[in-house]
Amino acid sequence: MPISEFALIERFFRHVGVRRADVRLGIGDDAALLAPAAGCDLVATVDTLVEGVHFPAGSPAASIGHRALAVNLSDLAAMGARPAWALLSLTLPEPRESWLEEFSAGFSALARTHQVALVGGNTTSGPLCISVQVLGHVPSGRALLRSGGKAGDTVFVSGTPGDSAAGLRLELGRLKDTSEAAAYLRERFLYPAPRVALGERLRDFASACIDVSDGLLADGEKLARASGCGVRMLHADLPVSESLVSVVGDDTARRLALTGGEDYELCFAVRAADVPRLMAELPPDQWAYRAIGALREVPGASVIAADATVMDFSHSGWDHFGA
Amino acid sequence: MPISEFALIERFFRHVGVRRADVRLGIGDDAALLAPAAGCDLVATVDTLVEGVHFPAGSPAASIGHRALAVNLSDLAAMGARPAWALLSLTLPEPRESWLEEFSAGFSALARTHQVALVGGNTTSGPLCISVQVLGHVPSGRALLRSGGKAGDTVFVSGTPGDSAAGLRLELGRLKDTSEAAAYLRERFLYPAPRVALGERLRDFASACIDVSDGLLADGEKLARASGCGVRMLHADLPVSESLVSVVGDDTARRLALTGGEDYELCFAVRAADVPRLMAELPPDQWAYRAIGALREVPGASVIAADATVMDFSHSGWDHFGA
Repeated sequence: MPISEFALIERFFRHVGVRRADVRLGIGDDAALLAPAAGCDLVATVDTLVEGVHFPAGSPAASIGHRALAVNLSDLAAMGARPAWALLSLTLPEPRESWLEEFSAGFSALARTHQVALVGGNTTSGPLCISVQVLGHVPSGRALLRSGGKAGDTVFVSGTPGDSAAGLRLELGRLKDTSEAAAYLRERFLYPAPRVALGERLRDFASACIDVSDGLLADGEKLARASGCGVRMLHADLPVSESLVSVVGDDTARRLALTGGEDYELCFAVRAADVPRLMAELPPDQWAYRAIGALREVPGASVIAADATVMDFSHSGWDHFGA
Repeated sequence: MPISEFALIERFFRHVGVRRADVRLGIGDDAALLAPAAGCDLVATVDTLVEGVHFPAGSPAASIGHRALAVNLSDLAAMGARPAWALLSLTLPEPRESWLEEFSAGFSALARTHQVALVGGNTTSGPLCISVQVLGHVPSGRALLRSGGKAGDTVFVSGTPGDSAAGLRLELGRLKDTSEAAAYLRERFLYPAPRVALGERLRDFASACIDVSDGLLADGEKLARASGCGVRMLHADLPVSESLVSVVGDDTARRLALTGGEDYELCFAVRAADVPRLMAELPPDQWAYRAIGALREVPGASVIAADATVMDFSHSGWDHFGA
């Protein structure tokens, strides 16, 4: 006997994430009632994962639940916002209990990490597709925008981009490797860690910020363009993980770092004068970020080799309907 | 040449709906920045339409855009809330410009009617699926809940439920009729009118409210259950349109009114003592609603025939994964 939609919601989604005092009414009525924080702007984003587009068919349900929330938390991190509430729209071919249990557990574990309450949602039958909205807060007027950069600002990236893209290729079987390094890369794709705490701290330092979902080169250029600039990245300064280099080699590692996508790291700009204070207050080793270049007046994104020549990356990131 | 995702968003979705002073930052960054209204609770809902599940393949794009927003506005109406902002997640197989233009126009026209700004969204490739989130406001503590009813409250419904269900059957070719009445019913399915203004006014009168999306019988029972009651509806009092009766006959009209679904009308309860004031201040003819029964202590939903016998409706509404 199929589980009814109402029973599904009740059983797997009513108590996802944390309970929050600012939720006046959660799942169960026509809409949620929420109490926004005083002195804050509300920050809202939505993102959708489609099977076969954003994750391979047959991905672990816990990973799908995790990623559906993570991609949205990453958007909030890029604004310097603190997440509060999520809504989930789940379309799936058939409600298998074990799948739902794992999906819900993956979503809920990440929600608890970031003190997020699931306050609304719906389930419907159809091709597997997960749409999540996240709402959060940022002190009024303090959000990090893409547009605040200036030529001369130092550009940083968090983490080690490229890992996730290699992990996806391993998941898809396009890359074959059974080493521990490969297992690490798969994990990085399946369970990305949105940089929420870093985003919040960067409100005191960054002039502009974007999350890296379509590839560092493409997203760095978006930040630069929104700021009326271009961006120059130093190939030798790209932070690539030892695991990535050991699995794909140094050249491919750097190419994936630039163009792979699905990293959910932060790319941010800091005025040169503010860099020493940033380094002192948020030690790069502890907060896992690194300078990779600078904004400049010339538009576009360039990658500079160790011999100072400009490198060409014809595939400049990932665009659903693009080339 | 395919249009890129960024060009799509820019071209068809940047200026959808109205401009609002409380939108600090709309589409174009990692998330939207919004200024919630003082003294209000934030009201949040999400709903998804899937091709072949919620609308027939080949439905007019303008209708799909309209309905994707309407179903969410209806949820806000049921809370007595005033809508403010929407986010859109659009998954579609291929970005045809004419389709996108019509979809966007249908969405935007309804957004303008209700002073809604589209503040965020994304497009992705995949099976046609539209997820919309709407945010709005209700004065703190004044939201209409499903749970406020008491045995003895009079139960009302707005509009003429059943029209939309017949319209869907006509669209699907399961019902064949080329009369003007049939054209009207199709229109009622394709372009439902969420009862936002009525919902806001009902804050002063209703003890409980729900929107009718799964059928009056099923949704009336949900309201009753949330209120710790049952509900009794009088078959003869169901408001059925002349168009519906002329196309399907009186018996089927009343069955569709009870179990058809997709109405996006409001079903609400009012304390018996408040009914005269409701009738006086919101004249039923002008606001298009009608008493159809009452809440009672006996759980469940019953329909009473003119001869006082209890009628059986084995199909009690619409549930994605239910019987």
